[in-house]
Amino acid sequence: MPGADGGDRVNRRWLMAARPDGNVRPSDFALDESPVPPLVDGQILVATDYLSVSPVMRHYMLRAAAGEPALEVGQVMRGRGVGTVLDSRHPGFAAGDVVHGPLGWQTHAVLAPTPKTLLFTVRQRVAPISTAIGVLGMTGYSAWFGFHDIGRPKVGDTVVVSGAAGGVGSVVGPLAKIAGCRVIGIAGGAEKCRLLTGRLRYDDAIDYRNEDVDARLAALCPSGIDIYFDNVGGRILDTCLGHIARKGRVVMCGRISEYLDGPLPGLANYHLVGTRNARMEGFFVYDYADRFAEAEARMAAWVASGELPYVEDRLDGFERMPEALAGLYEGTNLGKRIVAVSERALAGA
Amino acid sequence: MPGADGGDRVNRRWLMAARPDGNVRPSDFALDESPVPPLVDGQILVATDYLSVSPVMRHYMLRAAAGEPALEVGQVMRGRGVGTVLDSRHPGFAAGDVVHGPLGWQTHAVLAPTPKTLLFTVRQRVAPISTAIGVLGMTGYSAWFGFHDIGRPKVGDTVVVSGAAGGVGSVVGPLAKIAGCRVIGIAGGAEKCRLLTGRLRYDDAIDYRNEDVDARLAALCPSGIDIYFDNVGGRILDTCLGHIARKGRVVMCGRISEYLDGPLPGLANYHLVGTRNARMEGFFVYDYADRFAEAEARMAAWVASGELPYVEDRLDGFERMPEALAGLYEGTNLGKRIVAVSERALAGA
Repeated sequence: MPGADGGDRVNRRWLMAARPDGNVRPSDFALDESPVPPLVDGQILVATDYLSVSPVMRHYMLRAAAGEPALEVGQVMRGRGVGTVLDSRHPGFAAGDVVHGPLGWQTHAVLAPTPKTLLFTVRQRVAPISTAIGVLGMTGYSAWFGFHDIGRPKVGDTVVVSGAAGGVGSVVGPLAKIAGCRVIGIAGGAEKCRLLTGRLRYDDAIDYRNEDVDARLAALCPSGIDIYFDNVGGRILDTCLGHIARKGRVVMCGRISEYLDGPLPGLANYHLVGTRNARMEGFFVYDYADRFAEAEARMAAWVASGELPYVEDRLDGFERMPEALAGLYEGTNLGKRIVAVSERALAGA
Repeated sequence: MPGADGGDRVNRRWLMAARPDGNVRPSDFALDESPVPPLVDGQILVATDYLSVSPVMRHYMLRAAAGEPALEVGQVMRGRGVGTVLDSRHPGFAAGDVVHGPLGWQTHAVLAPTPKTLLFTVRQRVAPISTAIGVLGMTGYSAWFGFHDIGRPKVGDTVVVSGAAGGVGSVVGPLAKIAGCRVIGIAGGAEKCRLLTGRLRYDDAIDYRNEDVDARLAALCPSGIDIYFDNVGGRILDTCLGHIARKGRVVMCGRISEYLDGPLPGLANYHLVGTRNARMEGFFVYDYADRFAEAEARMAAWVASGELPYVEDRLDGFERMPEALAGLYEGTNLGKRIVAVSERALAGA
C-alpha cells in the first residue's frame, strides 16, 4: 500500500511517443510507470478519477495551442481530468477534495496550484463528478460562453449546430432551447440524429452522411440561420455560411473535419459575412475563467431540473486512452467522451 | 429658361441599358432626356451638383443590395449625390438648401423625402459641399462606423487597410492615426503608395502590384494585425488573415477584387478566426443612420483642423459617369471618385 507521502505509489502515464502524422493513432502513445514523488510545500497529489477526451488534443500534439507550447515526444500527454486529492501541502486544498484541472494522462498528478492553473474544486452536488469534465466543466463552459457571448441569442432565433452529438454540441442544443431558440443539429448517422431530437431536445437533425445538408438547411431555415455554432469547419461550415441570415453570427468553436479530411478547400461563402453584415468569431474558453463559477451555477441548476440533459460516452480503463482519442476523429462518440480511471470511477461513482 | 414649376426643365439621366457581364462597361448605360415633372405636395426638386461613384454600384446592377432590389434595365442608375434644392413642396426643405441623398444618375431629381429616404441637409461649413458624398457623407460614415464600431481600435493597435487609396480607405488611415494606431495601407502602384504615406498619414504602404504582400506584412507587423479593414476581399484578405493577431478584428467593408478578378479561390486562412480568437464582421452603414450626425460632427472638426485630410478624384461632366464607374474597377481612382455635374460644381464651388 502507498505511504502517506506518496513515495511508494506508482503513477501510470501515457506519454506522447510520436507526433501524429495525419490522424492520431494509438501507436502515437506509450505507457509508462514511475514512482509518485513526495510532495513539497504548495503541492497537492491528485488521484485521477476520469479523464477528458477532446478533439483539441491533436493540436496539443502538433503545435502550440490554447496558450501552451506544443508537447514534446516523451512528455506526459496533456489533458484535463477530475480527481480526488489524496494529500495536500497547499492551504487551499485538503485530502478528499474533488477537483478538475490539467491532470494530464496519468493516474496520479502532482500539481502546484496557482490562480493560473485552472484547477477548480468541484462544489456542485447535482450530478456525478464526471460532469466536471463535461457539461459542468470546460466542455459546458465552451458551449455556454460560445453560445451566449459570441452567439448572442435572442428568443426565436434559428440556431444550427454542427458536431451536434459531440461534447460541446450536445450541450449547445439544450442551451439554445432554454434560450427560446429553434435549434437544428448536424451529425453523422441515424443513431446520433435520434439522440439529437430525442434526449438532447434539438428540434430537427440533419444526417450529413446520408442527407443533402444544403437542401435540408434551405427547407428548415427559410429565413436563414441566426446563429451557426461550428464544431467542424470545412465544407459544413461553408454550406451553413451560405444560409447565414442578415446579422447572423458564426461561433467558431472547433474544426474536427480538419483532422478527418486533411487539408480542406477554402471557404467560398466568406463574402456573405460582408454582404449579410454577419459575424464570424472565435473564442478561447480560458479567457472567461473569472466567469466559470457563474456558468457552472446556472448550468447546474438546469442539470438538476432536467432542462439541461447531458450525454456521456464513457470508456472504462486508463489503458484505453489512446483508443478513446483516436476514435473521436472517426466520430465514434455519442456525447462527451470520458474515460473512467480510478476504482471508484470504474464502479460508477 | 425653366419655369418655376419645373415643367420646362430637361432632366438628363443615365439608365441601365444592360446588366454587366463581367466588369462594368460604359456600354451598360444609355443617356436619356425627359422633362422634369411638376412637383406635388411633399416633393422637392433637386439639381445635382456632384454624383458619387462607388464600387457597390455594380452590385446594384446585378442583384438586391444595400436594402434595395436589383435595378431593372431601363431604370435610372442608382447612386447618391449632393445637390441644391430648386423648389420645394415639403415643409422640411427650402429652395437653396444643399442636400445629399439618393439622387440617382440624373441632373434633376424629384424626391418625396421621408425619414427613411436618407436625404440629409448639408449643414457643415468647413469643407466644400462635394465632401457630403465623400469624407463627410456615406464614404466617411462607412470608414467611421466600420473602423470604430466593428474594428474597436485601441491606442497602439496595428491597423492594415486594403484599397487604402480608395474612397473609404483614404478616410480609414487618417482616422486610425487620430485613434493612436499604427496604420499600414495596401494599394496598387507607386503613386497611390506615395499618397498614402504622404498626404493620408499612413505609417507605411505596401504596393500589391510590385511587392510581396505576405513578406511585407511579416516585416511590418511582427506582432500581427489587430485590425484589418478589408475593402478588397479575395487573395489580399486571405493574406492579411494569415497575419491576424490574437483577438484581431477583420472589418468586412468591400470586395472590389471580386469585380476585377472574377470568381476567386476560397479563403484558406479562415481557421485562424477560430484559433486566434479573432472576429470577421460585416456592417451596413445605413444601420447607423441615427448616428450619422455624430460622425459628421466629429469628422468635420478634424477636417477643419487638418487632422483628417481627404482626397477627391474628380471627373468633370455628367456624360462621364459610365467611364468614371468602369474605371473604378480598374483602380484608376486616387481617393474618393466624384463627378461634377452642375455649372456651379464644374466651376469648383
